[in-house]
Amino acid sequence: MMTNAELQQKPIGIFDSGVGGLTVVAEVFKLLPEENIVYFGDVGRYPYGGRSKETIQNFARQDVRFLLEHQVKFIIVACNSASSVALEEIQKENDIDILGVIEPGARAAVNNTGNNRIGIIGTKATIGSDSYAKAIQRRRQETKVFSLACPLFVPLAEEGYIEKEATHLIASDYLKTLINLDIDTLVLGCTHYPLLKDVIARVMGERIRLIDSAEETARELAALLSLKNLLRPSGGDISHKFYVSDVPDKFSQIAERFLGRQIDNITRVDITRY
Amino acid sequence: MMTNAELQQKPIGIFDSGVGGLTVVAEVFKLLPEENIVYFGDVGRYPYGGRSKETIQNFARQDVRFLLEHQVKFIIVACNSASSVALEEIQKENDIDILGVIEPGARAAVNNTGNNRIGIIGTKATIGSDSYAKAIQRRRQETKVFSLACPLFVPLAEEGYIEKEATHLIASDYLKTLINLDIDTLVLGCTHYPLLKDVIARVMGERIRLIDSAEETARELAALLSLKNLLRPSGGDISHKFYVSDVPDKFSQIAERFLGRQIDNITRVDITRY
Repeated sequence: MMTNAELQQKPIGIFDSGVGGLTVVAEVFKLLPEENIVYFGDVGRYPYGGRSKETIQNFARQDVRFLLEHQVKFIIVACNSASSVALEEIQKENDIDILGVIEPGARAAVNNTGNNRIGIIGTKATIGSDSYAKAIQRRRQETKVFSLACPLFVPLAEEGYIEKEATHLIASDYLKTLINLDIDTLVLGCTHYPLLKDVIARVMGERIRLIDSAEETARELAALLSLKNLLRPSGGDISHKFYVSDVPDKFSQIAERFLGRQIDNITRVDITRY
Repeated sequence: MMTNAELQQKPIGIFDSGVGGLTVVAEVFKLLPEENIVYFGDVGRYPYGGRSKETIQNFARQDVRFLLEHQVKFIIVACNSASSVALEEIQKENDIDILGVIEPGARAAVNNTGNNRIGIIGTKATIGSDSYAKAIQRRRQETKVFSLACPLFVPLAEEGYIEKEATHLIASDYLKTLINLDIDTLVLGCTHYPLLKDVIARVMGERIRLIDSAEETARELAALLSLKNLLRPSGGDISHKFYVSDVPDKFSQIAERFLGRQIDNITRVDITRY
C-alpha cells in the first residue's frame, strides 16, 4: 500500500485520440507547474469520433491500462469522443479518479450564462453525440443549447493556420448562424479549438463569453487533487513523458504548436498490446 | 479456367485508404461507362500516409485479397501512399494486373513539359516520399522537380469548401512559392485535389498545365484493358459496389461530392479478416 506522500509524487495521466489533448496539458502546466504528466496520444487510431461506441470503449480501456502501468494518480480523458461514450464505463471499471472534458465545460457554461442560451461548437462527432447539450440540460433543464459542427477548425489548428484571413473567413462563415441566436456563452467543445480562440472571439464579439473546456478541465483537476490531498509538493525534479501509438515525427511538430514549447521525450508504444 | 469473354464481364477493383480514390472512380465512369466497379475505401485505417512502410504494405495486401475475392479483372491502387511504398510488392505477389496512381501522373507530366520544370503538389506523406519526383526523373533525368505539400487541401475538398474566398486565399498562400519557379506543368499528386482543380488553375494561371493523376490513371487503365482485350462489351446490367472498413455514413455524404452522384450500395467489411 502506498502512503499518501508517495501517491502525491505520482504523475497525472492524460490521454487523447491524438494531439488535441495537449491543450489540456498546456493548461495543467500553467495551473499545476509542480505536477508530472504522462500523456498518451493515440495518433495511430485517430480520430475516435466516427467509430462505433464499442470500439471507442475498447480503445479507452486500453488507454487507461497503459496509463495505469505508469502508476498515475489521476486520469484525464482529454478526448471529447471518449468522454462522451466511454467515460462512465472506465470510471465503473477502475478505482482511480477519472475526469472527462465535457462535464467541466458544461458546468462552467451553466455557471456563466445569464439568459440560459448557450452555444456549443465541436467536431461532427461531438456535436452529433449531443453530449454537451445533455450535460448542460442535466444541470439546468430550461437552458436552450445551440450546437454547431465546425469541421475545418481541427485541420486549421493542426496546420498552425491561425492568424490568417482565410481562417477568419471560415470562422465567420461557420459562426454566423450562432451570432443571431442571442447566446451569451459559447463552449469550445473540442480540444483543438483553444488555438483558434482569438479568431473565434473576434467573430463572436465581446459580449459572448467563450468557455474553454481544456482550461475548465485543468481547473477541476486542480480542485479535485487539492480536495483529495493529492497535490504534489513543490521541489524535486519534474519530468513529463509523452507516448504515441504511431510515428512520433508529426506529433512532435504539432505538439510544439499546442504546448508552446518543444518536447523531446516522445516514445512510440504498441497500444494494441494493452 | 475462365474464358476471355467471361473475364471481360468481371469488375475493375479500385482501393484507397479513404474517399480520395473516388476521383479515380469518377474518371473511370466517364471513360469506361460499360465497366463494373468494386471500390474498397479503408476509412477505418485512414490515412495510410504517416504509417510505416511495413504497415502500409500489409494493409495493401489485405485490400488486394478483398478485391480478389470479388473476382476483379484488374486492380487500381488509387492511394498515393500505397502506390509509393507497396505497389511493387503486391505486383510481385499477384498474377493480376495492378496499376498505381503515380506512374500515370508522372508519365503525363514528362510528356507535357516543354522546359523540363515540373511542380508536384500532394499531402505531406506523398511529398515526403518523393515518389513523383523519382518517377519523373527515372523517365527524364534532366527534369527539375519542385515539390510542395498542401495539407489543408484534403479537408477543404472533403468539406466541399470549394468555391470560397478562404479556399482561394489558402491556395494562393501555398502555391505562391511554385509560381515564380518557371514550371510549365503542375501534377495534382493527391486524389482529393481534382475537386480543387478550378481554384488551383486560377491561382497558377493559364500558362501552367495541370496534370490530374486520377484522369491519367483512368486513361492508362482504358489503354491497358483495350490492349489485353479485357474491355467489357456494352449491354447488360451495370452495378457498382462500394465497401468501407468503418461506418458508411460519412463516406456516403462525401462520396456524392467526389462522384457527382449518389451511391446507395455501400457495405461495411472487416478488412482485418483478409
